[in-house]
Amino acid sequence: MRLPLAFERYRCEIDAELRSVLAGRESPLYEMMRYHLGWVDEHGHPVQGSVGKCLRPTLLLLACEAVGGAWHKALPAATAVELVHNFSLIHDDIQDDDRERRHRPTVWSIWGKPQAINAGDSMHTLADIALLRLGDQCVALEKQQRAHHIMSEACLRLVEGQYYDISYENRLDIGVDDYLKMIEMKSAALIACSLELGALLGSDDEDVIRGLFACGRVLGLAFQIRDDFLGIWGTQKKTGKPSGSDIRRKKKSLPIVYAMEKARGTAKRELLNIYQKDVIEGQDVDAVQGILDALKAKSYIEEEAHKYLKRSLEEIRGIPLVPSAALELEEMARFLVERDF
Amino acid sequence: MRLPLAFERYRCEIDAELRSVLAGRESPLYEMMRYHLGWVDEHGHPVQGSVGKCLRPTLLLLACEAVGGAWHKALPAATAVELVHNFSLIHDDIQDDDRERRHRPTVWSIWGKPQAINAGDSMHTLADIALLRLGDQCVALEKQQRAHHIMSEACLRLVEGQYYDISYENRLDIGVDDYLKMIEMKSAALIACSLELGALLGSDDEDVIRGLFACGRVLGLAFQIRDDFLGIWGTQKKTGKPSGSDIRRKKKSLPIVYAMEKARGTAKRELLNIYQKDVIEGQDVDAVQGILDALKAKSYIEEEAHKYLKRSLEEIRGIPLVPSAALELEEMARFLVERDF
Repeated sequence: MRLPLAFERYRCEIDAELRSVLAGRESPLYEMMRYHLGWVDEHGHPVQGSVGKCLRPTLLLLACEAVGGAWHKALPAATAVELVHNFSLIHDDIQDDDRERRHRPTVWSIWGKPQAINAGDSMHTLADIALLRLGDQCVALEKQQRAHHIMSEACLRLVEGQYYDISYENRLDIGVDDYLKMIEMKSAALIACSLELGALLGSDDEDVIRGLFACGRVLGLAFQIRDDFLGIWGTQKKTGKPSGSDIRRKKKSLPIVYAMEKARGTAKRELLNIYQKDVIEGQDVDAVQGILDALKAKSYIEEEAHKYLKRSLEEIRGIPLVPSAALELEEMARFLVERDF
Repeated sequence: MRLPLAFERYRCEIDAELRSVLAGRESPLYEMMRYHLGWVDEHGHPVQGSVGKCLRPTLLLLACEAVGGAWHKALPAATAVELVHNFSLIHDDIQDDDRERRHRPTVWSIWGKPQAINAGDSMHTLADIALLRLGDQCVALEKQQRAHHIMSEACLRLVEGQYYDISYENRLDIGVDDYLKMIEMKSAALIACSLELGALLGSDDEDVIRGLFACGRVLGLAFQIRDDFLGIWGTQKKTGKPSGSDIRRKKKSLPIVYAMEKARGTAKRELLNIYQKDVIEGQDVDAVQGILDALKAKSYIEEEAHKYLKRSLEEIRGIPLVPSAALELEEMARFLVERDF
């Protein structure tokens, strides 16, 4: 599956702006951040390799273009949301005890949890510093303040979502509504924020800004539902995570929440038994996958993702946008629910 | 020992502003923050009890008054630094495995480490939101931006200091210079930032702003050295920590760093032996305290604290300040190195 071209168009400059935010900052803490961002190996030697897709900054810059703005001006906001996203990943890996991300050892698995907390905290602060660079782009001060508000509120929602995600792990009574509330905060908030910030920095039209925020919200839901799909039916080669990894981690991802709601009789009892265990083993993973198959969970998840994709396309079509950029936004939306990585 | 009156003067309004930042935010995550701030017990019931001294916000508001400013305008910055300080405490307790703070169980010891990371992350973000409230106080936008810069850079230094503090725990080659570099970041940066922000919000005189920053830096060093003193010679009743607790935790606090530099022969070997152990026991604590006594570490530490106190008083006297507030700043400086809690 090919990445939409928008990813390529901005990649170099997002990378340059990110590196510039960290430039001149020299201490082991910044090396940990550079490691997490995929720029150096654990000994600090530069590497060329897989880094993140930079989804959020790409969406932000594309939104800015789509509303007729000059996307270069929005680069500081693009790097800021990428740093927020990455600080949350560093902390997520600690919280979830995950030893691997993007085919590499996680920060905490190399430097230990206490120092990884520090690496995340610094990156969180660097996100603020990155956003303050809007001042170098002749963005009106009022707009800068508003951008800071938007990003901070999104960050609060992201962490609150992470709170619910963790709190769901040991519960067996999570319904689809609880799940949606959680991913709206954990995943959709920062994606909605990215589109909103892009629109804000490219336009003064409040309807357009609101419209792109709304689009980002449903797109974020679709994105996370696809992520949940890949967490069970994705392949390690593509996603970097072993197949069925979300089952092993007892994540209340949408397929599981759906199955808990739908399963009856023996299947329901088996599911509850497995999710009450301290450790889920290989045969349990197979059993859960069997139950999901029987309940046609796979096609349910695909339909749900497409439901939110459809809504995001309606939002895009309801806003007056630069036609070429609008088409690219649509391509991006489709990519997010069809990707296999 | 009596608290300087400045603490009393601002307490109510700092508290009100802090509560207002959290007002209307309802989720278990915010309850964890309210618990940490001493407003509720672990079940969310309001309590009246010991909370922090609010040292940093008090210094900030006093600095604002001292430069002839209206301190009410600076309240958002005062609460912001208090939130930065408290987010770092929540994460520190996780990193240090500390189960108790201010005579109460720490956040992580009640809600677990993963959720305590979230509580700290949210409080970190709330600090930014608190600072954005300067906009309601008719503070010029340029000044707000500059305040944000100052606070973010201080926060980066604080976390970097925390990085070094942890990295020193398993090292036996830490000298007094390394120690000073570490506390300048871990403790002095936020105190210097508090005085700088207070001055910035009360004055346009760059010399005055720089002077109060410099004063805060040495005051922060003096404060931390006194903290190290109390970590070994303080009493649990006053400090909330068992006597000798820093020895048990293998903290490279100034008395220990000094002793490692000064000890010779048997004392040196004993010290190194003890600090190479995985767990330091009661008799080891006694042995270390014996070595510190023999090296007159207690009076060395007191002299060091007074050295920085003297420098802070010189700084205060070198800046044109409102006389009554300048006297209060001096009283505050003395309190910080003479306090027994």
